[in-house]
Amino acid sequence: MGADLQTHQRQIADILSAWGMPARNAARTAEVMAWTDLHGVDSHGISMLTVYDRHVKAGRLRMAAEPRVIAEGPVHALVDGDGGLGHPAARLGMEQAIAKAAAAGIGMAAVRNSAHFGACGYYANMAAEAGMIGLVTTSASLVQVAPAGGAEARLGTDPLAFAAPGEPGRPFLLDMATTTVAAGRIRNKENEGLPCPPGWLLTKDGQPSTDPAEARARGGYLTSLGGSLEGSSYKGYGLSAMVNILSACLAGSTLITDPQHLKKPQGMDIGHFFLAINPAVFRPADDFRADVAAFCDALRGTRPATPGQPVMVAGDPERAHAERRRREGIPVAPGLLEKLRTLAAESGAPWHLGAPA
Amino acid sequence: MGADLQTHQRQIADILSAWGMPARNAARTAEVMAWTDLHGVDSHGISMLTVYDRHVKAGRLRMAAEPRVIAEGPVHALVDGDGGLGHPAARLGMEQAIAKAAAAGIGMAAVRNSAHFGACGYYANMAAEAGMIGLVTTSASLVQVAPAGGAEARLGTDPLAFAAPGEPGRPFLLDMATTTVAAGRIRNKENEGLPCPPGWLLTKDGQPSTDPAEARARGGYLTSLGGSLEGSSYKGYGLSAMVNILSACLAGSTLITDPQHLKKPQGMDIGHFFLAINPAVFRPADDFRADVAAFCDALRGTRPATPGQPVMVAGDPERAHAERRRREGIPVAPGLLEKLRTLAAESGAPWHLGAPA
Repeated sequence: MGADLQTHQRQIADILSAWGMPARNAARTAEVMAWTDLHGVDSHGISMLTVYDRHVKAGRLRMAAEPRVIAEGPVHALVDGDGGLGHPAARLGMEQAIAKAAAAGIGMAAVRNSAHFGACGYYANMAAEAGMIGLVTTSASLVQVAPAGGAEARLGTDPLAFAAPGEPGRPFLLDMATTTVAAGRIRNKENEGLPCPPGWLLTKDGQPSTDPAEARARGGYLTSLGGSLEGSSYKGYGLSAMVNILSACLAGSTLITDPQHLKKPQGMDIGHFFLAINPAVFRPADDFRADVAAFCDALRGTRPATPGQPVMVAGDPERAHAERRRREGIPVAPGLLEKLRTLAAESGAPWHLGAPA
Repeated sequence: MGADLQTHQRQIADILSAWGMPARNAARTAEVMAWTDLHGVDSHGISMLTVYDRHVKAGRLRMAAEPRVIAEGPVHALVDGDGGLGHPAARLGMEQAIAKAAAAGIGMAAVRNSAHFGACGYYANMAAEAGMIGLVTTSASLVQVAPAGGAEARLGTDPLAFAAPGEPGRPFLLDMATTTVAAGRIRNKENEGLPCPPGWLLTKDGQPSTDPAEARARGGYLTSLGGSLEGSSYKGYGLSAMVNILSACLAGSTLITDPQHLKKPQGMDIGHFFLAINPAVFRPADDFRADVAAFCDALRGTRPATPGQPVMVAGDPERAHAERRRREGIPVAPGLLEKLRTLAAESGAPWHLGAPA
């Protein structure tokens, strides 16, 4: 029902290469994007090529970019993304943070002059695979969220990811937007002709709405996690601000509230932040992992509210997707597949994914 | 309408001293608790003395405790709380993190063998006052939250705080439980005979409820931020797990899911985590502060959904409380005042707060 992981990844790499991305960066980016699709996060994998295509055509993404460390010390690195797609810059950032944490106990990297880097979870998971805690945040390009109590878009979906190694191959891996839901889930409701649950949306006057067309067509906003003032949306709003402070203010990237946001000559100037903590400085690494594993197992063992629907831990649903897709291939919906085929043909990239079923 | 800050603080210190806390620790603890009341966080200041009193009487808090650093390196410190109240151990932890960040760029402390430390925000604010980003988490004693999709309490309110210096005297300061609301707000609804908004509560079978008596009297649970599966409560649940991993797993404190939770001979064994980041390693500190200040001001400038109710930034509501209470004194409700007077008399502490109005 879809290509195998290797073919899927090669398709992505070939399109990126055809756009002028150096081979190593294309391979490293395709690896992130294919991992994301494998784990069921369809919003942040191959589907993003249609968005990147628009940025490339608009001259907003330097495909020839070579991200590099422009300043560093024993516990930090400052990375310049060179105006390119965020994935290579983000991998470099987390690699730096991990290397420094391995030597010093903790390490961090701030990245500026970057762009969309896909799913935060990939980079947090890099830390967990190295036996460390990982924390990742990124600023956003799209302004679509009103601060709690506001009637004007000021923020993005402003995601964060946190990972910790536990049972081998089963890290704790939280990857979340700080909004109640992403725009894609609202679009899905609209496509099905269904109302949204209360708390997902605001009208352009900042009033609650359940009409999925509100945000897209009538100038409304997404809500911060919590959904309403009574549901403590000031907490999701606060987390969103935290994400911007870490991602943009530390690196010196353009703030989403800056009138120059997305208008600077060098590119999109999105910022990211990466933190790695080596638990072995506090206690034997195996004891730490055993505690994380026991904690996750205790949570999984909670009596479920709906019989037969076990309680899961962050990372479990994505691992279930990955297991199935490793067996069955990675599905790409027919409409998207057709768009990607057009896009490959336009760029002169070879086509590997076959025809829509 | 209440004592001035100094008198309020002296009352707290005198009761702690009467319980056997060494003078310096009593002063340092009273400073945290009085700051908390000054900033309007009434749930975590002097009112907690009635809870601590029960722990002292039950032999669960070593008032003579002297927290100390038991292991350290250039970027980390491991603190043992010695089975005492958490405030002195937490201040020591954040002091260590800040000192290390000042020298190395980033610093962290894990605290074990501790207890309730009051409001997370106090310690995060210490970092902001030192010109740094602060992140603080703590594990909890009370098991009262069901994981998303669960029908069994497994977690606590599991708070986190994040601070960043911006305009002098006006840091960004987020201090939040990872639950939708705290138990106190549900109790308030019950006292007023009002239902809770949807999303605050679950029945003992994990079903949504708006009856405020549900959690207290009938074995129900608090919800994680998001409130329901449709409201993305798995995100609040994930943040709550993150808080426990940082607070308990790094320090090696007893996990809230451990059958030995609160049963260990040495005390409550709550864990905390403190992180300080020196922005000056990435860019001039003043540029960082100016960006944080501009960002906060842009958020405050958002058109409000309700005219006359300006959009605020994390830390603003608490600063407004502090300004008023510096002028008018710190109010203590009559019922609480009476309990505190009894408690002071029992312990032999002098009484400074006067009689109920």
